[in-house]
Amino acid sequence: MPVIQISTFKMADEAKAKELLQELTATMHRVTGVPLDKISAFLTEVEPNRWADAGVIGSDPEFQVKSRRRSYKVTT
Amino acid sequence: MPVIQISTFKMADEAKAKELLQELTATMHRVTGVPLDKISAFLTEVEPNRWADAGVIGSDPEFQVKSRRRSYKVTT
Amino acid sequence: MPVIQISTFKMADEAKAKELLQELTATMHRVTGVPLDKISAFLTEVEPNRWADAGVIGSDPEFQVKSRRRSYKVTT
Amino acid sequence: MPVIQISTFKMADEAKAKELLQELTATMHRVTGVPLDKISAFLTEVEPNRWADAGVIGSDPEFQVKSRRRSYKVTT
Amino acid sequence: MPVIQISTFKMADEAKAKELLQELTATMHRVTGVPLDKISAFLTEVEPNRWADAGVIGSDPEFQVKSRRRSYKVTT
Amino acid sequence: MPVIQISTFKMADEAKAKELLQELTATMHRVTGVPLDKISAFLTEVEPNRWADAGVIGSDPEFQVKSRRRSYKVTT
Repeated sequence: MPVIQISTFKMADEAKAKELLQELTATMHRVTGVPLDKISAFLTEVEPNRWADAGVIGSDPEFQVKSRRRSYKVTT
Repeated sequence: MPVIQISTFKMADEAKAKELLQELTATMHRVTGVPLDKISAFLTEVEPNRWADAGVIGSDPEFQVKSRRRSYKVTT
Repeated sequence: MPVIQISTFKMADEAKAKELLQELTATMHRVTGVPLDKISAFLTEVEPNRWADAGVIGSDPEFQVKSRRRSYKVTT
Repeated sequence: MPVIQISTFKMADEAKAKELLQELTATMHRVTGVPLDKISAFLTEVEPNRWADAGVIGSDPEFQVKSRRRSYKVTT
Repeated sequence: MPVIQISTFKMADEAKAKELLQELTATMHRVTGVPLDKISAFLTEVEPNRWADAGVIGSDPEFQVKSRRRSYKVTT
Repeated sequence: MPVIQISTFKMADEAKAKELLQELTATMHRVTGVPLDKISAFLTEVEPNRWADAGVIGSDPEFQVKSRRRSYKVTT
Protein backbone atom coordinates (compact mmCIF):
# COMPACT_ATOMS: atom_id res chain seq x y z
CA MET A 1 0.00 0.00 0.00
CA PRO A 2 -0.19 2.16 -2.02
CA VAL A 3 -0.20 0.61 -5.49
CA ILE A 4 0.33 2.62 -8.68
CA GLN A 5 -0.86 0.94 -11.87
CA ILE A 6 0.00 2.56 -15.17
CA SER A 7 -1.77 1.45 -18.34
CA THR A 8 0.03 2.75 -21.39
CA PHE A 9 1.20 1.96 -24.90
CA LYS A 10 4.20 -0.36 -25.20
CA MET A 11 7.38 1.37 -24.11
CA ALA A 12 10.19 0.37 -26.44
CA ASP A 13 12.75 2.32 -24.46
CA GLU A 14 13.78 0.17 -21.47
CA ALA A 15 15.53 3.02 -19.70
CA LYS A 16 12.42 5.20 -19.98
CA ALA A 17 10.21 2.45 -18.54
CA LYS A 18 12.50 2.11 -15.53
CA GLU A 19 12.79 5.85 -15.09
CA LEU A 20 9.01 6.16 -15.18
CA LEU A 21 8.53 3.60 -12.41
CA GLN A 22 11.31 5.13 -10.32
CA GLU A 23 10.08 8.70 -10.74
CA LEU A 24 6.41 7.94 -10.07
CA THR A 25 7.48 6.13 -6.91
CA ALA A 26 9.67 9.05 -5.87
CA THR A 27 6.80 11.47 -6.47
CA MET A 28 4.42 9.39 -4.38
CA HIS A 29 7.01 9.16 -1.59
CA ARG A 30 7.74 12.89 -1.64
CA VAL A 31 4.11 14.05 -1.67
CA THR A 32 2.61 11.58 0.82
CA GLY A 33 5.54 10.63 3.03
CA VAL A 34 4.63 6.94 2.77
CA PRO A 35 7.65 4.69 3.46
CA LEU A 36 9.26 3.57 0.21
CA ASP A 37 8.94 -0.16 0.88
CA LYS A 38 5.18 0.23 0.97
CA ILE A 39 4.97 1.63 -2.56
CA SER A 40 4.49 -0.71 -5.52
CA ALA A 41 4.25 0.47 -9.11
CA PHE A 42 3.82 -1.46 -12.32
CA LEU A 43 3.18 -0.93 -16.00
CA THR A 44 0.50 -2.66 -18.01
CA GLU A 45 1.49 -2.16 -21.62
CA VAL A 46 -1.31 -2.22 -24.15
CA GLU A 47 -0.87 -2.72 -27.90
CA PRO A 48 -2.08 0.33 -29.85
CA ASN A 49 -4.67 -1.87 -31.59
CA ARG A 50 -6.14 -2.79 -28.22
CA TRP A 51 -6.68 0.80 -27.12
CA ALA A 52 -9.15 3.45 -28.22
CA ASP A 53 -9.46 7.10 -27.30
CA ALA A 54 -12.70 8.67 -28.53
CA GLY A 55 -13.38 5.37 -30.25
CA VAL A 56 -10.30 5.78 -32.45
CA ILE A 57 -7.91 2.84 -32.37
CA GLY A 58 -4.35 3.60 -31.25
CA SER A 59 -2.86 2.16 -34.44
CA ASP A 60 -4.90 4.52 -36.63
CA PRO A 61 -2.40 6.74 -38.53
CA GLU A 62 -4.55 9.77 -37.71
CA PHE A 63 -4.92 8.82 -34.03
CA GLN A 64 -3.35 12.04 -32.73
CA VAL A 65 -5.95 14.17 -34.51
CA LYS A 66 -9.04 11.99 -34.56
CA SER A 67 -8.77 10.78 -30.96
CA ARG A 68 -9.44 14.35 -29.87
CA ARG A 69 -12.85 14.63 -31.52
CA ARG A 70 -15.67 15.45 -29.11
CA SER A 71 -18.48 13.88 -31.10
CA TYR A 72 -18.92 11.75 -34.21
CA LYS A 73 -19.81 14.82 -36.24
CA VAL A 74 -16.75 16.98 -35.71
CA THR A 75 -13.09 16.03 -35.87
CA THR A 76 -11.75 18.61 -33.44
CA MET B 1 -12.57 10.15 -17.82
CA PRO B 2 -14.29 7.74 -18.11
CA VAL B 3 -12.10 4.69 -18.63
CA ILE B 4 -13.43 1.32 -19.81
CA GLN B 5 -11.18 -1.65 -19.12
CA ILE B 6 -12.11 -4.99 -20.64
CA SER B 7 -10.44 -8.16 -19.39
CA THR B 8 -11.10 -11.02 -21.75
CA PHE B 9 -9.62 -14.04 -23.49
CA LYS B 10 -7.26 -13.34 -26.37
CA MET B 11 -9.12 -12.04 -29.39
CA ALA B 12 -7.64 -13.58 -32.53
CA ASP B 13 -9.92 -11.57 -34.78
CA GLU B 14 -8.37 -8.11 -35.17
CA ALA B 15 -11.48 -6.62 -36.71
CA LYS B 16 -13.60 -7.86 -33.80
CA ALA B 17 -11.23 -6.35 -31.26
CA LYS B 18 -11.43 -2.96 -32.96
CA GLU B 19 -15.17 -3.20 -33.35
CA LEU B 20 -15.53 -4.03 -29.66
CA LEU B 21 -13.55 -0.97 -28.57
CA GLN B 22 -15.43 1.27 -31.01
CA GLU B 23 -18.85 -0.04 -30.06
CA LEU B 24 -18.30 0.09 -26.29
CA THR B 25 -17.13 3.68 -26.69
CA ALA B 26 -20.17 4.52 -28.82
CA THR B 27 -22.46 2.96 -26.22
CA MET B 28 -20.85 4.95 -23.41
CA HIS B 29 -21.14 8.16 -25.44
CA ARG B 30 -24.77 7.52 -26.36
CA VAL B 31 -25.96 6.61 -22.84
CA THR B 32 -24.04 9.20 -20.82
CA GLY B 33 -23.50 12.05 -23.28
CA VAL B 34 -19.85 12.34 -22.23
CA PRO B 35 -17.75 13.98 -24.98
CA LEU B 36 -15.98 11.35 -27.09
CA ASP B 37 -12.46 12.66 -26.48
CA LYS B 38 -12.91 11.98 -22.77
CA ILE B 39 -13.60 8.26 -23.26
CA SER B 40 -10.73 5.77 -23.19
CA ALA B 41 -11.19 2.03 -23.63
CA PHE B 42 -8.68 -0.77 -23.68
CA LEU B 43 -8.49 -4.54 -23.72
CA THR B 44 -6.44 -6.65 -21.36
CA GLU B 45 -6.21 -10.05 -22.98
CA VAL B 46 -5.69 -12.99 -20.68
CA GLU B 47 -4.49 -16.43 -21.76
CA PRO B 48 -7.11 -19.12 -21.04
CA ASN B 49 -4.64 -20.86 -18.71
CA ARG B 50 -4.41 -17.69 -16.62
CA TRP B 51 -8.16 -17.39 -16.07
CA ALA B 52 -10.57 -19.42 -13.95
CA ASP B 53 -14.34 -19.27 -13.67
CA ALA B 54 -15.69 -21.36 -10.78
CA GLY B 55 -12.11 -22.51 -10.24
CA VAL B 56 -12.06 -24.15 -13.68
CA ILE B 57 -9.15 -23.08 -15.88
CA GLY B 58 -10.09 -21.50 -19.23
CA SER B 59 -8.01 -24.03 -21.16
CA ASP B 60 -9.94 -26.96 -19.68
CA PRO B 61 -11.71 -28.77 -22.57
CA GLU B 62 -14.86 -28.92 -20.44
CA PHE B 63 -14.66 -25.28 -19.40
CA GLN B 64 -18.04 -24.34 -20.86
CA VAL B 65 -19.84 -26.93 -18.72
CA LYS B 66 -17.71 -27.11 -15.59
CA SER B 67 -17.23 -23.36 -15.16
CA ARG B 68 -20.96 -23.11 -14.48
CA ARG B 69 -20.93 -25.38 -11.43
CA ARG B 70 -22.26 -23.72 -8.27
CA SER B 71 -20.38 -25.87 -5.79
CA TYR B 72 -17.69 -28.55 -5.77
CA LYS B 73 -20.33 -31.26 -5.43
CA VAL B 74 -22.44 -30.63 -8.52
CA THR B 75 -21.24 -30.00 -12.05
CA THR B 76 -24.15 -27.93 -13.26
CA MET C 1 -15.07 -13.87 -18.38
CA PRO C 2 -15.08 -11.23 -19.75
CA VAL C 3 -15.12 -8.44 -17.18
CA ILE C 4 -15.91 -4.81 -18.03
CA GLN C 5 -14.76 -2.25 -15.46
CA ILE C 6 -15.85 1.33 -15.89
CA SER C 7 -14.16 4.08 -13.91
CA THR C 8 -16.14 7.28 -14.07
CA PHE C 9 -17.41 10.28 -12.14
CA LYS C 10 -20.27 9.65 -9.73
CA MET C 11 -23.51 8.99 -11.59
CA ALA C 12 -26.37 10.71 -9.77
CA ASP C 13 -28.94 9.30 -12.15
CA GLU C 14 -29.72 5.75 -11.03
CA ALA C 15 -31.55 4.88 -14.23
CA LYS C 16 -28.58 6.01 -16.33
CA ALA C 17 -26.17 3.88 -14.29
CA LYS C 18 -28.31 0.80 -14.82
CA GLU C 19 -28.81 1.56 -18.49
CA LEU C 20 -25.05 1.97 -18.93
CA LEU C 21 -24.30 -1.44 -17.41
CA GLN C 22 -27.07 -3.09 -19.42
CA GLU C 23 -26.08 -1.49 -22.69
CA LEU C 24 -22.34 -2.14 -22.35
CA THR C 25 -23.17 -5.79 -21.63
CA ALA C 26 -25.49 -5.96 -24.63
CA THR C 27 -22.79 -4.46 -26.84
CA MET C 28 -20.21 -6.97 -25.64
CA HIS C 29 -22.65 -9.83 -26.22
CA ARG C 30 -23.60 -8.61 -29.70
CA VAL C 31 -20.06 -8.00 -30.94
CA THR C 32 -18.32 -11.07 -29.47
CA GLY C 33 -21.09 -13.63 -29.15
CA VAL C 34 -19.96 -14.51 -25.63
CA PRO C 35 -22.83 -16.06 -23.60
CA LEU C 36 -24.51 -13.43 -21.41
CA ASP C 37 -23.96 -15.25 -18.12
CA LYS C 38 -20.21 -14.98 -18.68
CA ILE C 39 -20.23 -11.17 -18.87
CA SER C 40 -19.74 -9.10 -15.72
CA ALA C 41 -19.71 -5.31 -15.70
CA PHE C 42 -19.31 -2.87 -12.85
CA LEU C 43 -18.84 0.82 -12.18
CA THR C 44 -16.15 2.32 -10.02
CA GLU C 45 -17.31 5.84 -9.29
CA VAL C 46 -14.63 8.39 -8.53
CA GLU C 47 -15.22 11.74 -6.85
CA PRO C 48 -14.25 14.63 -9.16
CA ASN C 49 -11.63 15.74 -6.62
CA ARG C 50 -9.94 12.34 -6.90
CA TRP C 51 -9.57 12.46 -10.67
CA ALA C 52 -7.30 14.50 -12.93
CA ASP C 53 -7.18 14.80 -16.69
CA ALA C 54 -4.10 16.68 -17.92
CA GLY C 55 -3.30 17.27 -14.26
CA VAL C 56 -6.48 19.32 -13.82
CA ILE C 57 -8.70 18.15 -10.95
CA GLY C 58 -12.24 17.14 -11.90
CA SER C 59 -13.77 19.58 -9.44
CA ASP C 60 -11.98 22.56 -11.05
CA PRO C 61 -14.68 24.91 -12.43
CA GLU C 62 -12.67 25.22 -15.63
CA PHE C 63 -12.10 21.48 -15.96
CA GLN C 64 -13.80 21.19 -19.35
CA VAL C 65 -11.42 23.70 -20.90
CA LYS C 66 -8.21 23.22 -18.95
CA SER C 67 -8.24 19.40 -18.97
CA ARG C 68 -7.74 19.54 -22.73
CA ARG C 69 -4.41 21.41 -22.59
CA ARG C 70 -1.57 19.55 -24.26
CA SER C 71 1.24 21.10 -22.25
CA TYR C 72 1.70 23.39 -19.27
CA LYS C 73 2.32 26.33 -21.58
CA VAL C 74 -0.85 26.33 -23.67
CA THR C 75 -4.45 25.95 -22.55
CA THR C 76 -5.84 24.35 -25.71
CA MET D 1 4.38 -7.71 -5.60
CA PRO D 2 2.08 -9.56 -5.95
CA VAL D 3 -1.16 -7.59 -5.57
CA ILE D 4 -4.56 -9.23 -5.12
CA GLN D 5 -7.56 -7.03 -5.93
CA ILE D 6 -11.00 -8.33 -5.11
CA SER D 7 -14.06 -6.62 -6.57
CA THR D 8 -17.20 -7.74 -4.78
CA PHE D 9 -20.52 -6.68 -3.34
CA LYS D 10 -20.41 -4.76 -0.08
CA MET D 11 -19.45 -7.00 2.81
CA ALA D 12 -21.53 -6.10 5.84
CA ASP D 13 -19.71 -8.59 8.03
CA GLU D 14 -16.46 -6.99 9.17
CA ALA D 15 -15.02 -10.22 10.45
CA LYS D 16 -15.68 -11.94 7.11
CA ALA D 17 -13.96 -9.14 5.19
CA LYS D 18 -10.86 -9.46 7.36
CA GLU D 19 -10.89 -13.23 7.15
CA LEU D 20 -11.17 -13.05 3.38
CA LEU D 21 -8.10 -10.80 3.07
CA GLN D 22 -6.13 -12.93 5.53
CA GLU D 23 -7.05 -16.23 3.90
CA LEU D 24 -6.42 -15.09 0.31
CA THR D 25 -3.01 -13.84 1.44
CA ALA D 26 -2.28 -17.13 3.19
CA THR D 27 -3.30 -19.07 0.07
CA MET D 28 -1.03 -16.96 -2.13
CA HIS D 29 1.86 -17.42 0.31
CA ARG D 30 1.33 -21.18 0.57
CA VAL D 31 1.02 -21.84 -3.16
CA THR D 32 3.76 -19.54 -4.46
CA GLY D 33 6.18 -19.26 -1.54
CA VAL D 34 6.36 -15.48 -2.00
CA PRO D 35 7.45 -13.75 1.25
CA LEU D 36 4.42 -12.44 3.16
CA ASP D 37 5.58 -8.82 3.28
CA LYS D 38 5.48 -8.71 -0.52
CA ILE D 39 1.78 -9.64 -0.71
CA SER D 40 -0.85 -6.90 -0.75
CA ALA D 41 -4.58 -7.59 -0.95
CA PHE D 42 -7.51 -5.22 -0.97
CA LEU D 43 -11.25 -5.20 -1.49
CA THR D 44 -13.12 -2.89 -3.83
CA GLU D 45 -16.72 -3.08 -2.72
CA VAL D 46 -19.33 -2.33 -5.35
CA GLU D 47 -22.97 -1.44 -4.64
CA PRO D 48 -25.34 -4.04 -6.14
CA ASN D 49 -26.88 -1.32 -8.33
CA ARG D 50 -23.46 -0.65 -9.86
CA TRP D 51 -22.85 -4.25 -10.89
CA ALA D 52 -24.38 -6.40 -13.62
CA ASP D 53 -23.94 -10.07 -14.42
CA ALA D 54 -25.49 -11.05 -17.75
CA GLY D 55 -26.78 -7.49 -17.93
CA VAL D 56 -28.91 -8.03 -14.81
CA ILE D 57 -28.36 -5.44 -12.09
CA GLY D 58 -27.23 -6.79 -8.70
CA SER D 59 -30.14 -5.17 -6.90
CA ASP D 60 -32.70 -6.96 -9.09
CA PRO D 61 -34.78 -9.23 -6.79
CA GLU D 62 -34.43 -12.02 -9.34
CA PHE D 63 -30.68 -11.51 -9.78
CA GLN D 64 -29.76 -15.04 -8.70
CA VAL D 65 -31.87 -16.57 -11.44
CA LYS D 66 -31.75 -14.03 -14.22
CA SER D 67 -28.02 -13.32 -14.00
CA ARG D 68 -27.42 -16.89 -15.19
CA ARG D 69 -29.23 -16.50 -18.50
CA ARG D 70 -27.04 -17.26 -21.51
CA SER D 71 -28.91 -15.10 -24.00
CA TYR D 72 -31.72 -12.57 -24.02
CA LYS D 73 -34.17 -15.24 -25.16
CA VAL D 74 -33.81 -17.80 -22.39
CA THR D 75 -33.73 -17.26 -18.66
CA THR D 76 -31.59 -20.24 -17.74
CA MET E 1 -3.87 7.03 -22.75
CA PRO E 2 -2.01 6.61 -20.47
CA VAL E 3 -4.04 6.01 -17.32
CA ILE E 4 -2.56 6.13 -13.81
CA GLN E 5 -4.61 4.39 -11.11
CA ILE E 6 -3.56 4.81 -7.51
CA SER E 7 -4.99 2.52 -4.84
CA THR E 8 -4.28 3.88 -1.40
CA PHE E 9 -5.66 4.47 2.07
CA LYS E 10 -8.16 7.27 2.44
CA MET E 11 -6.51 10.66 2.11
CA ALA E 12 -8.01 13.04 4.63
CA ASP E 13 -5.98 15.94 3.36
CA GLU E 14 -7.74 17.33 0.28
CA ALA E 15 -4.78 19.44 -0.77
CA LYS E 16 -2.46 16.42 -0.62
CA ALA E 17 -4.81 14.35 -2.77
CA LYS E 18 -4.88 17.05 -5.43
CA GLU E 19 -1.14 17.57 -5.24
CA LEU E 20 -0.58 13.85 -5.65
CA LEU E 21 -2.68 13.68 -8.83
CA GLN E 22 -1.05 16.80 -10.22
CA GLU E 23 2.49 15.69 -9.43
CA LEU E 24 2.09 12.13 -10.75
CA THR E 25 0.69 13.60 -13.97
CA ALA E 26 3.58 16.05 -14.21
CA THR E 27 6.08 13.22 -13.67
CA MET E 28 4.46 11.11 -16.39
CA HIS E 29 4.48 14.08 -18.78
CA ARG E 30 8.11 14.96 -18.03
CA VAL E 31 9.49 11.42 -18.36
CA THR E 32 7.51 10.21 -21.38
CA GLY E 33 6.71 13.41 -23.27
CA VAL E 34 3.09 12.31 -23.71
CA PRO E 35 0.77 15.31 -24.29
CA LEU E 36 -0.92 16.36 -21.05
CA ASP E 37 -4.48 15.99 -22.32
CA LYS E 38 -3.84 12.28 -22.90
CA ILE E 39 -2.94 11.61 -19.26
CA SER E 40 -5.66 10.57 -16.80
CA ALA E 41 -5.00 9.83 -13.15
CA PHE E 42 -7.35 8.83 -10.38
CA LEU E 43 -7.33 7.67 -6.79
CA THR E 44 -9.15 4.63 -5.48
CA GLU E 45 -9.24 5.07 -1.73
CA VAL E 46 -9.49 1.92 0.34
CA GLU E 47 -10.57 1.77 3.98
CA PRO E 48 -7.76 0.39 6.18
CA ASN E 49 -10.01 -2.52 7.18
CA ARG E 50 -10.33 -3.50 3.52
CA TRP E 51 -6.59 -3.71 2.92
CA ALA E 52 -3.98 -6.22 4.06
CA ASP E 53 -0.22 -6.21 3.66
CA ALA E 54 1.37 -9.54 4.65
CA GLY E 55 -2.10 -10.62 5.71
CA VAL E 56 -2.22 -7.89 8.38
CA ILE E 57 -5.27 -5.65 8.18
CA GLY E 58 -4.58 -1.92 7.74
CA SER E 59 -6.58 -1.02 10.83
CA ASP E 60 -4.44 -3.25 13.05
CA PRO E 61 -2.69 -0.99 15.63
CA GLU E 62 0.55 -2.86 14.96
CA PHE E 63 0.19 -2.69 11.17
CA GLN E 64 3.46 -0.82 10.63
CA VAL E 65 5.47 -3.55 12.32
CA LYS E 66 3.52 -6.70 11.57
CA SER E 67 2.84 -5.94 7.91
CA ARG E 68 6.56 -6.28 7.28
CA ARG E 69 6.80 -9.90 8.46
CA ARG E 70 8.15 -12.27 5.82
CA SER E 71 6.48 -15.42 7.12
CA TYR E 72 3.97 -16.44 9.76
CA LYS E 73 6.78 -17.49 12.11
CA VAL E 74 8.72 -14.25 12.41
CA THR E 75 7.42 -10.74 12.95
CA THR E 76 10.20 -8.85 11.22
CA MET F 1 -19.23 -11.29 -9.10
CA PRO F 2 -16.85 -11.41 -7.35
CA VAL F 3 -13.72 -10.93 -9.44
CA ILE F 4 -10.20 -11.68 -8.17
CA GLN F 5 -7.38 -10.03 -10.12
CA ILE F 6 -3.84 -11.02 -9.31
CA SER F 7 -0.94 -8.92 -10.58
CA THR F 8 2.31 -10.77 -10.22
CA PHE F 9 5.64 -11.60 -11.83
CA LYS F 10 5.55 -14.10 -14.69
CA MET F 11 4.84 -17.60 -13.45
CA ALA F 12 6.99 -20.06 -15.38
CA ASP F 13 5.43 -23.03 -13.64
CA GLU F 14 2.13 -23.79 -15.40
CA ALA F 15 0.93 -26.12 -12.67
CA LYS F 16 1.55 -23.46 -10.02
CA ALA F 17 -0.40 -20.86 -11.98
CA LYS F 18 -3.38 -23.19 -12.24
CA GLU F 19 -3.14 -24.20 -8.61
CA LEU F 20 -3.04 -20.55 -7.58
CA LEU F 21 -6.24 -19.72 -9.48
CA GLN F 22 -7.98 -22.83 -8.18
CA GLU F 23 -6.93 -22.30 -4.57
CA LEU F 24 -7.78 -18.57 -4.46
CA THR F 25 -11.21 -19.44 -5.86
CA ALA F 26 -11.67 -22.20 -3.29
CA THR F 27 -10.67 -19.81 -0.49
CA MET F 28 -13.15 -17.18 -1.69
CA HIS F 29 -15.90 -19.80 -1.91
CA ARG F 30 -15.15 -21.22 1.53
CA VAL F 31 -14.95 -17.88 3.37
CA THR F 32 -17.88 -16.08 1.71
CA GLY F 33 -20.19 -18.88 0.61
CA VAL F 34 -20.61 -17.26 -2.82
CA PRO F 35 -21.66 -19.84 -5.46
CA LEU F 36 -18.64 -21.06 -7.42
CA ASP F 37 -19.99 -20.08 -10.83
CA LYS F 38 -20.05 -16.46 -9.72
CA ILE F 39 -16.32 -16.34 -8.94
CA SER F 40 -13.85 -15.28 -11.63
CA ALA F 41 -10.10 -15.09 -11.08
CA PHE F 42 -7.31 -14.14 -13.42
CA LEU F 43 -3.61 -13.43 -13.44
CA THR F 44 -1.98 -10.37 -14.93
CA GLU F 45 1.67 -11.26 -15.28
CA VAL F 46 4.12 -8.39 -15.24
CA GLU F 47 7.71 -8.55 -16.46
CA PRO F 48 10.17 -7.83 -13.64
CA ASN F 49 11.47 -4.80 -15.55
CA ARG F 50 7.97 -3.34 -15.56
CA TRP F 51 7.52 -3.55 -11.79
CA ALA F 52 9.04 -1.57 -8.94
CA ASP F 53 8.79 -2.00 -5.20
CA ALA F 54 10.26 0.92 -3.27
CA GLY F 55 11.33 2.30 -6.63
CA VAL F 56 13.62 -0.68 -7.21
CA ILE F 57 13.03 -2.49 -10.52
CA GLY F 58 12.12 -6.18 -10.25
CA SER F 59 15.00 -7.20 -12.51
CA ASP F 60 17.57 -5.56 -10.22
CA PRO F 61 19.87 -8.33 -8.89
CA GLU F 62 19.56 -6.82 -5.42
CA PHE F 63 15.79 -6.47 -5.61
CA GLN F 64 15.11 -8.68 -2.58
CA VAL F 65 17.21 -6.45 -0.32
CA LYS F 66 16.83 -3.01 -1.83
CA SER F 67 13.06 -3.20 -2.42
CA ARG F 68 12.62 -3.27 1.36
CA ARG F 69 14.28 0.11 1.97
CA ARG F 70 12.01 2.58 3.75
CA SER F 71 13.63 5.73 2.43
CA TYR F 72 16.29 6.75 -0.06
CA LYS F 73 18.82 7.15 2.74
CA VAL F 74 18.74 3.76 4.39
CA THR F 75 18.68 0.32 2.83
CA THR F 76 17.38 -1.60 5.90
